[in-house]
Amino acid sequence: MLVVMKADATAREVSDIIGVIENLGFRAHPMPGATRTAIGITGNQGAVDPSHFENMPGVAEAIRVTKPYKLITLDLSPDRTIVRVGDATIGGDELALIAGPCAIESHAQAFAVAAAVSRSGARFFRGGAFKPRTSPYAFQGLGIEGLKILAEVREVYGLKIVTEALDEQGIDEVERYADMIQIGARNMHNFSLLRRAGRSHLPVLLKRGWAATLDEWLLAAEYIMVEGNYQVVLCERGVRTFAQHTRNTLDLAAVPAVRQISHLPVVIDPSHGTGKNFMVTPLARAGVAVGADGLLVEVHNRPEHALSDGAQSLTLEQYEQMVEDVIMIHKVMVPMVCLS
Amino acid sequence: MLVVMKADATAREVSDIIGVIENLGFRAHPMPGATRTAIGITGNQGAVDPSHFENMPGVAEAIRVTKPYKLITLDLSPDRTIVRVGDATIGGDELALIAGPCAIESHAQAFAVAAAVSRSGARFFRGGAFKPRTSPYAFQGLGIEGLKILAEVREVYGLKIVTEALDEQGIDEVERYADMIQIGARNMHNFSLLRRAGRSHLPVLLKRGWAATLDEWLLAAEYIMVEGNYQVVLCERGVRTFAQHTRNTLDLAAVPAVRQISHLPVVIDPSHGTGKNFMVTPLARAGVAVGADGLLVEVHNRPEHALSDGAQSLTLEQYEQMVEDVIMIHKVMVPMVCLS
Amino acid sequence: MLVVMKADATAREVSDIIGVIENLGFRAHPMPGATRTAIGITGNQGAVDPSHFENMPGVAEAIRVTKPYKLITLDLSPDRTIVRVGDATIGGDELALIAGPCAIESHAQAFAVAAAVSRSGARFFRGGAFKPRTSPYAFQGLGIEGLKILAEVREVYGLKIVTEALDEQGIDEVERYADMIQIGARNMHNFSLLRRAGRSHLPVLLKRGWAATLDEWLLAAEYIMVEGNYQVVLCERGVRTFAQHTRNTLDLAAVPAVRQISHLPVVIDPSHGTGKNFMVTPLARAGVAVGADGLLVEVHNRPEHALSDGAQSLTLEQYEQMVEDVIMIHKVMVPMVCLS
Amino acid sequence: MLVVMKADATAREVSDIIGVIENLGFRAHPMPGATRTAIGITGNQGAVDPSHFENMPGVAEAIRVTKPYKLITLDLSPDRTIVRVGDATIGGDELALIAGPCAIESHAQAFAVAAAVSRSGARFFRGGAFKPRTSPYAFQGLGIEGLKILAEVREVYGLKIVTEALDEQGIDEVERYADMIQIGARNMHNFSLLRRAGRSHLPVLLKRGWAATLDEWLLAAEYIMVEGNYQVVLCERGVRTFAQHTRNTLDLAAVPAVRQISHLPVVIDPSHGTGKNFMVTPLARAGVAVGADGLLVEVHNRPEHALSDGAQSLTLEQYEQMVEDVIMIHKVMVPMVCLS
Repeated sequence: MLVVMKADATAREVSDIIGVIENLGFRAHPMPGATRTAIGITGNQGAVDPSHFENMPGVAEAIRVTKPYKLITLDLSPDRTIVRVGDATIGGDELALIAGPCAIESHAQAFAVAAAVSRSGARFFRGGAFKPRTSPYAFQGLGIEGLKILAEVREVYGLKIVTEALDEQGIDEVERYADMIQIGARNMHNFSLLRRAGRSHLPVLLKRGWAATLDEWLLAAEYIMVEGNYQVVLCERGVRTFAQHTRNTLDLAAVPAVRQISHLPVVIDPSHGTGKNFMVTPLARAGVAVGADGLLVEVHNRPEHALSDGAQSLTLEQYEQMVEDVIMIHKVMVPMVCLS
Repeated sequence: MLVVMKADATAREVSDIIGVIENLGFRAHPMPGATRTAIGITGNQGAVDPSHFENMPGVAEAIRVTKPYKLITLDLSPDRTIVRVGDATIGGDELALIAGPCAIESHAQAFAVAAAVSRSGARFFRGGAFKPRTSPYAFQGLGIEGLKILAEVREVYGLKIVTEALDEQGIDEVERYADMIQIGARNMHNFSLLRRAGRSHLPVLLKRGWAATLDEWLLAAEYIMVEGNYQVVLCERGVRTFAQHTRNTLDLAAVPAVRQISHLPVVIDPSHGTGKNFMVTPLARAGVAVGADGLLVEVHNRPEHALSDGAQSLTLEQYEQMVEDVIMIHKVMVPMVCLS
Repeated sequence: MLVVMKADATAREVSDIIGVIENLGFRAHPMPGATRTAIGITGNQGAVDPSHFENMPGVAEAIRVTKPYKLITLDLSPDRTIVRVGDATIGGDELALIAGPCAIESHAQAFAVAAAVSRSGARFFRGGAFKPRTSPYAFQGLGIEGLKILAEVREVYGLKIVTEALDEQGIDEVERYADMIQIGARNMHNFSLLRRAGRSHLPVLLKRGWAATLDEWLLAAEYIMVEGNYQVVLCERGVRTFAQHTRNTLDLAAVPAVRQISHLPVVIDPSHGTGKNFMVTPLARAGVAVGADGLLVEVHNRPEHALSDGAQSLTLEQYEQMVEDVIMIHKVMVPMVCLS
Repeated sequence: MLVVMKADATAREVSDIIGVIENLGFRAHPMPGATRTAIGITGNQGAVDPSHFENMPGVAEAIRVTKPYKLITLDLSPDRTIVRVGDATIGGDELALIAGPCAIESHAQAFAVAAAVSRSGARFFRGGAFKPRTSPYAFQGLGIEGLKILAEVREVYGLKIVTEALDEQGIDEVERYADMIQIGARNMHNFSLLRRAGRSHLPVLLKRGWAATLDEWLLAAEYIMVEGNYQVVLCERGVRTFAQHTRNTLDLAAVPAVRQISHLPVVIDPSHGTGKNFMVTPLARAGVAVGADGLLVEVHNRPEHALSDGAQSLTLEQYEQMVEDVIMIHKVMVPMVCLS
């Protein structure tokens, strides 16, 4: 914490601040400058709350210095985390492909898509059984019925199942039928749900909220890890901006930003990240080129009949083409990524 | 829904679209223009999913026309809703003042603030027992202990208690001790929580998510109402933008925007809406002048020692001055608001 | 400037930073903390460029402390500036009303609106002769012809004329016919235009760019003032956000934010700030209640036939009602504002 | 244009709207629906102004359908534009590399960077002589002196010179010394400057404003083209969002978005798009993978001594590595891009 005094702050005001700092058990470092004094604070273990100082007389600003995270940092664990889901991995040398329909709609639909996903070499199948929908009148998913279909897909194709839970009871059900719990963007700040996921034996795919800062996203991961579950994969899925040519603005710079701070793997969702079918493949290629550990992609056998997110789903043919493209890029990337 | 064809769409592509529309059981209205054809859709009861059309050959764009809400609209209920909390109201002629500390920290703190709130003529006391905090290492509230202090405040001062619930179990507890359930900004899209609030006998204060569109906010209210609880108060608390001189950008235009569509009352939170002590009173005045039904304000007896949100809390003296100011504005507003 | 070192920075890296600071002629203040060292910099006259340090080995972050402005600050001029336009003022006790059509379309239109503006007691008439339009195919204003009509309005009604200039030559023309130069939101970063306005004898109304931070806006004023023209009025007109229920999100917190730093007057434009006719009056009331020095409002005698911005223009009747409303609020505000 | 009536609109209100449409010379297509009537408009050549209808009684909304651009569209010119700058091209099969320092600071600096740029195989050298700076107290560029250094670089290395002009007089100078005019993000809405660039014989690099929608950016290109200069290259350089881990949020989806509408080439600026040295190469790779026609990159021989933008400049070594990386990706991209 750095407390910056106003140009006209009195010596008394400066010494009052120093008093408060010392009362909190910290050490104060006053630095008188040409036009104003700044006071550094050391001795704190975590972040100091700026509000201790912001409204005191003579204070212009209180600036945070210490970062508030612990478990997600490279400081703690300099090696990259490799999340293991059975014999499949996210965060290692292989590009993790997680593909499937937005929502499980029927046995036939799930199996048609799963066959193509399996054929493409992907190891993960995604599909929603519990769907968070903006409108209460929209299709809300098949629920347990959907989870059972997913479990059958797992059995038949050997794909690892990634599916979303919306509440604590939902995690109980997902644990019964699936391999990885997805926490959706709308729930990134649902701390009760994060803590429950932190007590699960399953790995967690944590989507970034659409208006979450990097710090907030990493602290959401910290909420899961603090309960003991260190198997967390971050997923960038676009943020909300003024731009209207896409459903969200995919923030690919989040990948190098996470890499510099955290050991956790990070994947890209170009489907929600754009919301438009014709943009998914170009942004999937970009996601691999920026250095992501994997992709989360929506695929549907008949997008024009999809009960949700049809506009952004790839057809089976488009999906197969996309996989070919991204694998070619991943191949030339491997030596580069090692350098970074 | 309006489907706009590309300039070079063929007659065949147009008739394919018409076929899909008719298969869905709707009526198609083709309008051939100078450069392109547009096809209107009627006969649908709710919103039509644009993804049925967006990726079909020859389609340039599918534009939503029908709004997706039912219960919140003035169409349904042309009279403004007045939410009753015992003998106090939100949405009527009186300005609803909801004030108190961000978090209940102790009996002494709660009673010191409650005394001032009661003296000011406010009818509602707010204070958090369960605190949603970005960091798992920050103060998380006193829990049930905090609720018990709130219940004592109610008994001693006759103030109505407004407090936040973070999960379904939290609502059980809030129902036991308080008068109104607050759903926080981070939980505006927690649909399980919204549905549970919809089954409560207590009225609900629904804060807008910091990146929620007007539609999403109103549909969150719809989630509550569809379960049978029509006692919903909307609360604008600022949205997240590029601007850094405030914690959030308070979107006061949300008040006339809500008024034009919905019968629900709407209040303003200038504390979270700005995040800075010195901005709270000016924005509280503006909130009343724009026509809000009330204010939600953070007050603390010793803001510099607050365990959360100290930087934006008013002192007791500042709070009393603010109440004087907003009441004067509310008085001159009364005849104007009637006109709107 | 505060340079924060990484947790694992070596003593050598710290001393290298100190060396660079001293080479720049500044003084270094190392503060060793429990987990990392921070180094304060003093002795600099203006802002230090963080890029001197950000990429040096061992550096985690370089944080700006000194603010980059000089002439706009209260430090320099503790008294509020009152901008004088002939015998009218902006920034004093009176509420400045600046009203008129978006674009001057004809003599008849300008005079119909001017008559109502004059009747309302406003002292300023606004109207565009040179219109910045997103599309080159949209109406671009009457040019010199429009300026001549404005000059006639001035003569007949005694109103002060505020009109926009788009380029340096445009300022020559505006100086010939008008009383105050408007710099539009799109040109807030057109530094050649700002410098030219700084060499004018006319006062300047400087609109905030729709994605300008507070610092950028104040520095744009600084560009004008550094050339010698201190008669600058700031105008908040809404910023661009994800929200779609308004054309822009009016950032009323900009008023107290400016007040705390600068002596310059600030006015609110609720017309561009909302883009919707029915929102203009509520937000005009809020603008006065937040403490603005005036309002800039679009009025048209026949909005449904306006060549630009019809959707947000008030009718003459609506305008007259708005003036009554805001004057009542301004009256009760006067004693409050003195307190702030 | 589609005019959507309110649910309770009267038959009279509907027929009034039809009257206004017909008076404007257009054709009205009323579509009575189950709950409300919508009225389509055809017969218009360009976009209809929604404000003709938005405030008329009974109207809920007026929705734009026709797009406002002409010259930039694929409708007009289905073949991609290849911009020729002497014997170099942007928009063809080759990846265009435009590299150099943010600002020309000295002969020695320019030549040190130019040698590396030339060695890398790039055809374009960028460097600012006139610098738009947020603060009037920051380094503003060497002016004509800088242009002369650029002309020497051209002579010695055969590189094409790309440099920014800030005003009409600046374009006169740039035409004298350089090969391509850059219009910066701050000037994307400076219509006088755009028109002047449209009368130049030099090609134009048009940066997207940091809060410009796709439509606004394309219409800025239209302003240039309408004056007769069709040699326009679009440059995405990041948009301003709430995110703080980057200087801007690079919107790579702009590439497929532009491709679907326009024949103009589009390049990516990962330097301004991120503002952080360590993010430039990953985002440069992503820019190529998404399908951009080229890159605009800041390189400096001594970034820690740069007079502007040092934090985001690559060193010469980093730049050389980046070129190797992006060329490998471009090679595997060639067959894919042909498919899109």
